Amino acid sequence: MAKESGITRIAVCQIEPVFGEVQRNADTTLEAIAAAAAAGADAVVLPELASTGYMFANRAEAFELSQEAGRHAVTGQWLRAAAEHQLIVVGGFAERDGDVLYNAAFLARPDGRWSVYRKVHLWDEEALYFEPGNLGFPVVDLPFGRVGMMICYDGWFPEAYRALADSGADLVCVPTNWVPLEGHPDGQPAMATVLVRAAAHVNGLVVAAADRVGRERGQDFIGQSVIVSHTGLVLAGPASSTEPALLWADVNLGETRRSRGWGRFNHLLADRRPDAYGPSRA
Amino acid sequence: MAKESGITRIAVCQIEPVFGEVQRNADTTLEAIAAAAAAGADAVVLPELASTGYMFANRAEAFELSQEAGRHAVTGQWLRAAAEHQLIVVGGFAERDGDVLYNAAFLARPDGRWSVYRKVHLWDEEALYFEPGNLGFPVVDLPFGRVGMMICYDGWFPEAYRALADSGADLVCVPTNWVPLEGHPDGQPAMATVLVRAAAHVNGLVVAAADRVGRERGQDFIGQSVIVSHTGLVLAGPASSTEPALLWADVNLGETRRSRGWGRFNHLLADRRPDAYGPSRA
Repeated sequence: MAKESGITRIAVCQIEPVFGEVQRNADTTLEAIAAAAAAGADAVVLPELASTGYMFANRAEAFELSQEAGRHAVTGQWLRAAAEHQLIVVGGFAERDGDVLYNAAFLARPDGRWSVYRKVHLWDEEALYFEPGNLGFPVVDLPFGRVGMMICYDGWFPEAYRALADSGADLVCVPTNWVPLEGHPDGQPAMATVLVRAAAHVNGLVVAAADRVGRERGQDFIGQSVIVSHTGLVLAGPASSTEPALLWADVNLGETRRSRGWGRFNHLLADRRPDAYGPSRA
Repeated sequence: MAKESGITRIAVCQIEPVFGEVQRNADTTLEAIAAAAAAGADAVVLPELASTGYMFANRAEAFELSQEAGRHAVTGQWLRAAAEHQLIVVGGFAERDGDVLYNAAFLARPDGRWSVYRKVHLWDEEALYFEPGNLGFPVVDLPFGRVGMMICYDGWFPEAYRALADSGADLVCVPTNWVPLEGHPDGQPAMATVLVRAAAHVNGLVVAAADRVGRERGQDFIGQSVIVSHTGLVLAGPASSTEPALLWADVNLGETRRSRGWGRFNHLLADRRPDAYGPSRA
């Protein structure tokens, strides 16, 4: 269990929320956090909308289940768990800010400080309930490294990972609710995990994606949570596509930025050529 | 062999160039093109620097082996092969333009017209011999669809695929000379193919990557050429990591742009949020 100096143990909790049962779901996350802590985790990632479930029927229902971020409600419980277990908790919840809702991620620190990320790229009917995130892709400076967040469909936008890398992120925590893709062959790794690996590799970022499992109001979720190194290799997972799971991996976040310089000539971020990316026709 | 209406057969020729033997390499490409034509290909992709090999010792050697693009030399042979077999040829060559060199791709059309792409992101010591590409990422309008090109390390830049999608590309042809990555586990698909799949999926682009095999002046190349659908699924390959190969796949380039709209709310290009990608700190 002992970790070398400079090593951070990242855990991902794949769970199955029950739609609308906020306190029951919060309890599930607290149990998962405790299990990750027992495994020696320094940071724990929970799925998207872990406290509510995903399949809102209308905005009124989403509004009713949403909570303000802070020292109360589910985010308050995550803050207390972070203090109790002395680790970082990142989890997805339905955030109410006045009369406005966001599909958000909450980062709880052991000392009681916290940060919120609001999903920038809304997927499907989320657009009926939530507003597009208005906080960009913030990076949080933590003792063991710099942490960014994104949620599910954000991962379909390489720009999101670039924004985090440009802001200095070493680790990206991804609460997610991945759904099956039409036409995807059984038995092949989910495209979502292919996207995570590619993004980790081309940006030199560790990525920890916590998905959910189960079926909710006719919608299946695919599990396959994964932790990927800054070189794009799978360190843990993909987890089961149907059962809850706890994954963890030890990473050296000091290596993420070193890894962006390749040899004497190349650097994954500095080699970009914005002058060359405009419209062009032969 | 017969193709349905709207179907384009894309072939990829994985070959082993011999360093410095330009005419011998040209002959190898002509044989590969003929084999692809016999398989019914509408377009054929050849590796990066297919006419020269890759491991130049110095600029003088690269200069000596380079050729101007046009109706002479290796590109002239590709134009004649395109006319003879009535298909598109895309291949990599060392382009001399006056006193300047580019790591370039040549697109030959059956009617004698041609286009050049010049590698934008130079890898390692290429920077000693070649100038960075100055033509952006052009898209060529062809009867069966719109075709863009990129070369090897360009694929590490999601911005390159985005530029091609924004310019209307349906198919991206990738002449490449992928090399082994340090620490990559034996038996796992090359990261290069993971990047291709992710880029195809998040942009709705068919991608055909033609790699080389063999060892040259101490440098190994990894083969594993691949053709990927606009959904990111592998249609053909990955080819052998050591032997020449011919791959082909039938694609419907009419589906590429349709595939970018997902349901009633989402579109892979239109959903981008440039306002959200700037520097941000929690």
